[in-house]
Amino acid sequence: MEVMKVLHMNKGDGETSYANNSAVQGKIITTAKPVIEEAILGILCETFPESIGIADLGCSSGPNSLLVISEIIDIIHAKCRNLGRPSPEFRVSLNDLPGNDFNSIFESLPAFFKKQKQEKGIGFGRCYISGVAGSFYDRLFPDKSLHFVHSSSSLHWLSQVPPALETNATPAALNKGKIYISKSSPQCVLDAYSLQFQNNFLIFLKSRAAEMVAGGRMVLSLMGRRSIDPTTEESCYQWELLAQALMSLVTERLIEEEKLDSFNAPYYAPCPEELKMAIQKEGSFIIDRLGHFEIDWDGGVEELTNTTLLPLSRGQRVAKTVRAVVESMFELHFGKAMMDLLFARYAEMVDDYLSKNRAKYINLVISIIKKDN
Amino acid sequence: MEVMKVLHMNKGDGETSYANNSAVQGKIITTAKPVIEEAILGILCETFPESIGIADLGCSSGPNSLLVISEIIDIIHAKCRNLGRPSPEFRVSLNDLPGNDFNSIFESLPAFFKKQKQEKGIGFGRCYISGVAGSFYDRLFPDKSLHFVHSSSSLHWLSQVPPALETNATPAALNKGKIYISKSSPQCVLDAYSLQFQNNFLIFLKSRAAEMVAGGRMVLSLMGRRSIDPTTEESCYQWELLAQALMSLVTERLIEEEKLDSFNAPYYAPCPEELKMAIQKEGSFIIDRLGHFEIDWDGGVEELTNTTLLPLSRGQRVAKTVRAVVESMFELHFGKAMMDLLFARYAEMVDDYLSKNRAKYINLVISIIKKDN
Repeated sequence: MEVMKVLHMNKGDGETSYANNSAVQGKIITTAKPVIEEAILGILCETFPESIGIADLGCSSGPNSLLVISEIIDIIHAKCRNLGRPSPEFRVSLNDLPGNDFNSIFESLPAFFKKQKQEKGIGFGRCYISGVAGSFYDRLFPDKSLHFVHSSSSLHWLSQVPPALETNATPAALNKGKIYISKSSPQCVLDAYSLQFQNNFLIFLKSRAAEMVAGGRMVLSLMGRRSIDPTTEESCYQWELLAQALMSLVTERLIEEEKLDSFNAPYYAPCPEELKMAIQKEGSFIIDRLGHFEIDWDGGVEELTNTTLLPLSRGQRVAKTVRAVVESMFELHFGKAMMDLLFARYAEMVDDYLSKNRAKYINLVISIIKKDN
Repeated sequence: MEVMKVLHMNKGDGETSYANNSAVQGKIITTAKPVIEEAILGILCETFPESIGIADLGCSSGPNSLLVISEIIDIIHAKCRNLGRPSPEFRVSLNDLPGNDFNSIFESLPAFFKKQKQEKGIGFGRCYISGVAGSFYDRLFPDKSLHFVHSSSSLHWLSQVPPALETNATPAALNKGKIYISKSSPQCVLDAYSLQFQNNFLIFLKSRAAEMVAGGRMVLSLMGRRSIDPTTEESCYQWELLAQALMSLVTERLIEEEKLDSFNAPYYAPCPEELKMAIQKEGSFIIDRLGHFEIDWDGGVEELTNTTLLPLSRGQRVAKTVRAVVESMFELHFGKAMMDLLFARYAEMVDDYLSKNRAKYINLVISIIKKDN
């Protein structure tokens, strides 16, 4: 499966769109803001570029795409006001895969610029925003053109399912009914996923190292786990439940068993040690900060309650969030007709699980600095 | 009417899409290629940048968007091979209004890059393509970041209908039944359009002057006229016929007369002297070449005959070409329900006209050089 072609958030602004179901990812961005702020002030402390290159990798579409950029510009602008100097020229690149809904981002730009000008007045520097379509597991930007790179809720997506596990190569028995890493995964499956992540993350770092100036900084947040054990519940239990929902449709003969056997998600939730290892191996970056935080599966109840509609259960909210992200991939493999039923079933299972368990996503957040060289 | 919001080519790849009805604009690009080649070789003669900034303004979507870029890269790559040196890093920006279908351009990029690599092999430099959404009658790019700027079939679109002619300001009688400049247009209408073009083109030049390096070059082609008289048939007869088609729907009470009275197209076909005047007034550019060429209204018969379908009449082909460009604007003003009928009527009128007349668009093409300073 070529992830490049099938992995994109649900487009548009309808009921199941990512734009309307990305509050969890928004909350992650907001939670990581102090780390972003620290990194940016670190850049401005060392040097004060007249033109500052900023990239958001895996920007998606919907409110979060411009939320990050808005935060970054606010931080720089506030610092400039404190110092009594004009804002730099902002060169902002928004990146995602070619299937991303860039049109909707671009359509929201005139209102974004208007708001920036109103809020910041004439002291606000020029701001150029461009869209860059391509995989961040490859070069995306010219040499030494970036000062600050951000990526949130993206790097847990691999460039592909580990080659050893692709449909034709995997004995169905090896992987039966598993779309994720679990306690019963054979060691070879665990190793293949870990290796794929290492390879991807190394290429990611190498590409950014060429694109960033010395002293430039990068803040990355992604799904992860605290434990070294990759089969820990916290790293993948949302997938375990989705696999159970799929299994229930297999039992009812609504989905063929082979379909399920041949499906693997290109997803891996690393532990901090894995990030460290890749960064040390690649060698161009110093780790400034590495931590984690927890996010409720539904992003916290208050933010998401829409009082004008029938309230959704927590399970339904979680299901909508997950659906907006993975539907394009699942639809291709299991067929469009199954999607409503699958995610309704999933919502029930999540509700059941949440009634008995405390369920949090673990988000790793890392801030690194490009070495001089 | 805010052109920014309503002027975009028909999206997607259906029957009435711009992607499937832009052969005339493609022919214009191909015809202007020698001028593009001369300008680029002129840049490489003076200096040989390691990283070359290229922008296409009003790139639209469909096959033409990457056709221009492909031509430009081919010219530079061939020159580098001749000189036995590696290609530069290409920084390519594709610009159009925020309503443009950038998604479809981005989706075609992986195939584009693959083809470039296959054709050009390892000698091919890195190529970064980004999308920039916004009006070219404003700043779009960072200071001194561009070496070559191209725009084709775009600059005849004004940023707005001249303010003096906006619905509320114009006595209906002044503009009755006219959506274009014609022999019966009062002098104040002619003057307002000419002034709007001058103002727009001045801002265009001023913006590009800040964005381009000294010695950078710009090739612009746009609809125009040879004569100083703005009411000459060659500059607007395609609109005269479209106005007649609208009038026929008014006569049949399918469109309200007030609707037609209050509609003005933000379109102006300048003469070479008007381009010269603005360039001299702005002062940052030297004119290297200024000429014109003729293009058949239907872009030439051979290219467009699709032998697997019922052949279209020339009038139908012209109507499809015009519809793909102006429908978004017309639909907003006259309603979606009228569009099929309007353009069917238009096709008949064009067929009738072409049976008696030789009908060519005049395309002005100008090549200018950014002065040192």
